[in-house]
Amino acid sequence: MRRSERIVRLTRELLNHPGQPLSLTDLADHYSVAKSSLSEDLAIIRMVMEQDGEGLLRTQLGAAGGVVFEPGITRTTAERFVVSLMERFHQGARMLPGGYLYIADVMADPVVVRTAGRMFGEMFREKRPDVVLTVETNGIPLAVLAAQELHVPYVVARRDHTWLEGPSVSTNYESGSDRRLHTMSLARRSIKQGARVVIIDDFMKAGGTIRGMTSLMEEFAADVVGIGVLLSTSEPQDKRVGAYTSLLFLDSVNATDGAIHMRQGNYFSRVEEERHG
Amino acid sequence: MRRSERIVRLTRELLNHPGQPLSLTDLADHYSVAKSSLSEDLAIIRMVMEQDGEGLLRTQLGAAGGVVFEPGITRTTAERFVVSLMERFHQGARMLPGGYLYIADVMADPVVVRTAGRMFGEMFREKRPDVVLTVETNGIPLAVLAAQELHVPYVVARRDHTWLEGPSVSTNYESGSDRRLHTMSLARRSIKQGARVVIIDDFMKAGGTIRGMTSLMEEFAADVVGIGVLLSTSEPQDKRVGAYTSLLFLDSVNATDGAIHMRQGNYFSRVEEERHG
Repeated sequence: MRRSERIVRLTRELLNHPGQPLSLTDLADHYSVAKSSLSEDLAIIRMVMEQDGEGLLRTQLGAAGGVVFEPGITRTTAERFVVSLMERFHQGARMLPGGYLYIADVMADPVVVRTAGRMFGEMFREKRPDVVLTVETNGIPLAVLAAQELHVPYVVARRDHTWLEGPSVSTNYESGSDRRLHTMSLARRSIKQGARVVIIDDFMKAGGTIRGMTSLMEEFAADVVGIGVLLSTSEPQDKRVGAYTSLLFLDSVNATDGAIHMRQGNYFSRVEEERHG
Repeated sequence: MRRSERIVRLTRELLNHPGQPLSLTDLADHYSVAKSSLSEDLAIIRMVMEQDGEGLLRTQLGAAGGVVFEPGITRTTAERFVVSLMERFHQGARMLPGGYLYIADVMADPVVVRTAGRMFGEMFREKRPDVVLTVETNGIPLAVLAAQELHVPYVVARRDHTWLEGPSVSTNYESGSDRRLHTMSLARRSIKQGARVVIIDDFMKAGGTIRGMTSLMEEFAADVVGIGVLLSTSEPQDKRVGAYTSLLFLDSVNATDGAIHMRQGNYFSRVEEERHG
């Protein structure tokens, strides 16, 4: 096999298995190539990915030595994406009762949900989460794509009790403009004690729903290591949760003409903080 | 830039943009390379992908000429995946009331949902769908990953009316062992008249829920071009829907000891039928 063909195959295998260690021995056997040539190929791939800011190739030493690809996203790509999101949210009639925005059409775009998932992957990778948690329904796609990037399972808390998944834990939470009490529940077996949890949702206003998820995690004796939302309102400034990362801030929606004011969220400053401690 | 580096970048760009046309002119500019060299690089990538059955590289001719990568999965990989799914479903206590199985832990695995999504992508790509439809909640991750593969939006029908997304259409459907009547609804603006729709869900028994989605699509004057489920029960043989593709059949669950009998679904025969007309 020519080197160029092998490089196509290696790049593909790495990108198709984000976060999963691939054994050097298996790769060398599979492509009938010496480990030294394989290492040279991987060095080229590593160099390109790092140069482009598109991910890291980590090498694991030892007898069971392997290589893991961790996808990344450059700041430029992420910033362009956030600008394009704002442009799209400004198009069309989006005002819904209760100060909510209709965003389902934008969220449904395969590139939007993938890119946002990749940004959350970049943000939370170093937290080494064990699981991504969301609550049904609108945050599920984003949580699933973030979990893909982080190579961990997703877990979805339910808003009803009717779907039985064995013994479960429930909590009440206050959410929405009406500040009504709701219930969310989660099967006892779905999260292990001490698990490191990243919470993902599409929209946050006062933070009641996310506060519900953090309370639920206390019941599971799990550790919330990160909270990420696509869109959060600027008001109220004091959310019912602690530190969170938002891709976009929604400053206001004009009730008369539906005009929206948005700006870049705290994602970029939070990523920088993470990097520089 | 060395050819090997360019090949890493091109492979990555193609895999990161499944189903999206990339302009040859833009790629040549971006990598400061002659179109002839670019074509040679792409020929290598195309050859490798086709040899391995891991996808197709389609070239679009003309002034706005471009290249599109459509991911694929080999029969061997897909068969191994289905066997591994069966093995996992055989582990642990999975019996739930009403003849349902607890499968959330397996579905939550990032590799499971991605590989199943890729299989549905392979199955339905030639149907040229415009959108992937599911109903909340359990089928959403699978629908989102299938939509990623097909590079189309996903749409989620709601089981309640409380979440307002503007004018919506509702339908009643009969589902579950109790054959109770339920309601599902979908925002009017979420699917266009004449749209080609693939329906994806995780589990099908008599097919009532999927029948609900096909009825809903009639109300939208949309065209259901495919139905895919991860797991369907063998009984009843006559489902309330027409042709469907299932990765796995569930023959029986022993109510006393919880023993499960499963076998490969009709996916592989359906893929063959599609290929050979």
